[in-house]
Amino acid sequence: MAQKKTKLRVIPLGGLGEIGKNATCLEYGGEIILIDCGVAFPEDDMLGIDLVIPDFTYLYKNKEKVKGLFLTHGHEDHIGSIPYFLREVDVPIYATKLTHGLLENKLKEHRINAHQVVVAAGETIKLGSFKVEFIRVTHSIADACALAIQTPVGMVVHSGDFKVDYTPIQGEAIDLQRFAELGKKGVALFLCESTNVMEEGHTMSESSVGPILDRIFEDSPKQRIMVATFSSNIHRIQQIVNSAIKQRRKVVVMGRSMANAVRTACELGYLDIPDKVLIEISELKNYPKEQLVVIMTGSQGEPMAALSRMAVSDHRQIDVQPNDKIIISASPIPGNEKMISKVINELMRKGADVVYEGLMEVHVSGHAKKEEIKLLHALLRPRYLMPVHGEYRHLKHHKDLAISLGMKKERVFILELGEVLELSDRSAAVNGSVQAGRTLVDGLGVGDVGNVVLRDRKHLSQDGLMIAVVIIEKRSGAVVGGPDIISRGFVYVKEAENLIEEARSMVQSALQKCGHKNINEWSYMKNLIKDTLREFLWQKTKRSPMILPIIMEV
Amino acid sequence: MAQKKTKLRVIPLGGLGEIGKNATCLEYGGEIILIDCGVAFPEDDMLGIDLVIPDFTYLYKNKEKVKGLFLTHGHEDHIGSIPYFLREVDVPIYATKLTHGLLENKLKEHRINAHQVVVAAGETIKLGSFKVEFIRVTHSIADACALAIQTPVGMVVHSGDFKVDYTPIQGEAIDLQRFAELGKKGVALFLCESTNVMEEGHTMSESSVGPILDRIFEDSPKQRIMVATFSSNIHRIQQIVNSAIKQRRKVVVMGRSMANAVRTACELGYLDIPDKVLIEISELKNYPKEQLVVIMTGSQGEPMAALSRMAVSDHRQIDVQPNDKIIISASPIPGNEKMISKVINELMRKGADVVYEGLMEVHVSGHAKKEEIKLLHALLRPRYLMPVHGEYRHLKHHKDLAISLGMKKERVFILELGEVLELSDRSAAVNGSVQAGRTLVDGLGVGDVGNVVLRDRKHLSQDGLMIAVVIIEKRSGAVVGGPDIISRGFVYVKEAENLIEEARSMVQSALQKCGHKNINEWSYMKNLIKDTLREFLWQKTKRSPMILPIIMEV
Repeated sequence: MAQKKTKLRVIPLGGLGEIGKNATCLEYGGEIILIDCGVAFPEDDMLGIDLVIPDFTYLYKNKEKVKGLFLTHGHEDHIGSIPYFLREVDVPIYATKLTHGLLENKLKEHRINAHQVVVAAGETIKLGSFKVEFIRVTHSIADACALAIQTPVGMVVHSGDFKVDYTPIQGEAIDLQRFAELGKKGVALFLCESTNVMEEGHTMSESSVGPILDRIFEDSPKQRIMVATFSSNIHRIQQIVNSAIKQRRKVVVMGRSMANAVRTACELGYLDIPDKVLIEISELKNYPKEQLVVIMTGSQGEPMAALSRMAVSDHRQIDVQPNDKIIISASPIPGNEKMISKVINELMRKGADVVYEGLMEVHVSGHAKKEEIKLLHALLRPRYLMPVHGEYRHLKHHKDLAISLGMKKERVFILELGEVLELSDRSAAVNGSVQAGRTLVDGLGVGDVGNVVLRDRKHLSQDGLMIAVVIIEKRSGAVVGGPDIISRGFVYVKEAENLIEEARSMVQSALQKCGHKNINEWSYMKNLIKDTLREFLWQKTKRSPMILPIIMEV
Repeated sequence: MAQKKTKLRVIPLGGLGEIGKNATCLEYGGEIILIDCGVAFPEDDMLGIDLVIPDFTYLYKNKEKVKGLFLTHGHEDHIGSIPYFLREVDVPIYATKLTHGLLENKLKEHRINAHQVVVAAGETIKLGSFKVEFIRVTHSIADACALAIQTPVGMVVHSGDFKVDYTPIQGEAIDLQRFAELGKKGVALFLCESTNVMEEGHTMSESSVGPILDRIFEDSPKQRIMVATFSSNIHRIQQIVNSAIKQRRKVVVMGRSMANAVRTACELGYLDIPDKVLIEISELKNYPKEQLVVIMTGSQGEPMAALSRMAVSDHRQIDVQPNDKIIISASPIPGNEKMISKVINELMRKGADVVYEGLMEVHVSGHAKKEEIKLLHALLRPRYLMPVHGEYRHLKHHKDLAISLGMKKERVFILELGEVLELSDRSAAVNGSVQAGRTLVDGLGVGDVGNVVLRDRKHLSQDGLMIAVVIIEKRSGAVVGGPDIISRGFVYVKEAENLIEEARSMVQSALQKCGHKNINEWSYMKNLIKDTLREFLWQKTKRSPMILPIIMEV
């Protein structure tokens, strides 16, 4: 009888059917490796939540199996969960130099030490049954890689985030030859990102932005220039610096994450800013405005970032002035459109001249569009495909794209989070699932805010609350204090004194009836207060505040 | 000495520097007319708010001066505030037939009778010092008009919402000749909409959508077809019906607002659906799916609308099935992008084939782009311009556009809400302002939810609340009950019993100290409880729930 062969299990724990918190787990025998470990931003209905990380329960339960964490690049949606993950599972982290540099900043903030192993593109790490090769790709952050993982059942390639940029600003172009070589040898499974799979054509090269910036700089000889972009977009920052140098302007960096990223990138040699060009914020006043370029955070309209603070005149070091030229060198992450619009409106109201995507080509995406994705498919010719990184519609479009390239539809696997794709050397199939989903981070709490708490916050946010307090004498069961009514977030109390007083007497008479009947079970009384107030308030206001009856005993 | 001449006062009460709740007031001598009276949807930070209407204080204080309300068309952002406005100011309403039909539905819901005067395009209403002429324009709703208002100081033209559609689906094209004629005679002030002023080119004709729908219908012979669109877009609905008829399909209408709009439009002759084509929802089961077209609400991802309910399997009458063809014939209103994406993802997950803007040209805008706005400017050649309907950046772009057409920049007025533009026969200038802004509607309450209540809702939504109740004996001032701690929306209590117990003892010992010192002023005690809990909870959780100390006396 033939022995049952071990299969490779590929389990997406994030980045599938959603945006962000990318994390994919590969398991063979008793060994697990994890690819990326990112965060997502909270959805609108996750009130008060700071961050969303993958539900790592499966890995926490299998701690001893987890051998290593491999990072494709240093964006938050690929590294942001690491401080939380490391608290439970201590594993070595393999990544390129800049990725480690950015991670280092993050780990310092969390006061965590990690075993960080620097890998160069082209190198291969052997870890148990896995051989993980880092392959240079181009993306909106420097030092990004795809991973080619040699496993006992065949080659698995994970694209990471990529675009096919033939003319990157620094470093080498995407290593298409290596992808071709792997394809020739045979690729079992391709996990490929899907962010821009619905966009026609080919994403423009990062280097197309430089000439546009140059032209804007040339056309603004008398204006102070301020540019907001992603702090991790080192190549964009380099191009802004280059334009500044051409116009003999000094460069100031604003915003904590921007300052951290620039310092790290300079130290590691990914960013080149001559000493005499970079000045401190405190030196701003020594230069006339036409000799300045400010590079800063806030391109997403984040309320606490430099640009938004300037827009509402809440920035300590700098005020927006009429005629300032402000360039937003980024595009809105879905959901941020309105915040950015608000910031732009406020800046324009102050008389600033605001340039953003849509008006001029001051931004290009970091993600592959249809033609680039087709190119990678054509080079790799994988036996199976698992589209990753995207909402369901992106994954579905990716599937359709693959089919249009000649792939059989049963060879494309759109998984749900936690589903297990089992791969042998001759077959692939979804088989079962592990616990997966979202863990919410709120302040210091990781996972302590669940649906009940969120439902309460939602309720409180809609119509506020009304509290009714009653004191009961233990001996007699008689009401000896209250009912007192307190409300918050429901109506402006000073203008609604009558309503509150009416509510109070409604509760009072309800309690009196209840007293006469000698029904003094607390839960009954509480429900009575709740129902009385709910009905009364709905009828009077068509609102449903949360109602909290509190009964105290003396 | 020459007598001081009366000036015309033009006062925007809505639709400026914001989207929606359009309302503009024209005042001459003792007479006021109001143009449009719309609502806006609440912003993200207006928690629990249902609608936003203009702050009409100025008109309420000058009730007797208000002579009439003129409506350009029947969209919510132009008519939605009327039920609220009419409660305070009873004026005749002048509008075209379909606008009145749609308003009628709304007034019925609010059980309000109004004095509605039907005006045909081309007609002029004389009201005191004003002569108001209705001029046919094309827009994404039938029977839309611009207004040309003859005043003692000159002609004022308000564009309403418009596009230059030479081939509308029904009714006449925009009356360009009349605009030219007015321009020849001389236009003092042009109030022109700015929604699409940042878009290059010319908006496509509504009739360009029909052939696309035809093609989709032809290509889907075996599929049930469902189309979501705006209920007021009568011409779009007509085209969907036309495509259905060509394929011998029956039409079902779903969603309350869709059913109302279709009924009204059919009754008034703006929509033509043969009796045998329109079937009831209850008849759905009598037809095979390939003979059906469902027209419905939900194109904005609104959680309560038909399409969204289908997406989450919460619709009573219809289930989405694999292979259903679902067309979203609309584009997202800014801010709705994520809701729509969610709905699309869910529909695709159910196996439906979803077509939306971006994939195919199944929608065109109802608003003029740059070239159309230029055309109206060229025909009218106004002396002064007030850009309206747009965020600040739209108004600013509109100003720049006008300047590029040769207008002097001092003749363009970007106002803030409530600012007064004074116009004489030879000059125009901003002079003072009246109260204006936003009035929030929450349930039955109009204006009773202000900043304090919203701030409380925001606070509650972020970290919930913690209540500490203490009972004090009147006679002795001693604590005889509590402290009891109750929390909601803060932590899941069952998992945080220790934390709550700790909080309780923190309060207890604080109160004990306070007892020893004989400090029993309530406000002091309340602050002590607040500070104690705030500090403790922040240190333990890095969260700041609202803290409500309640002291009761027996």
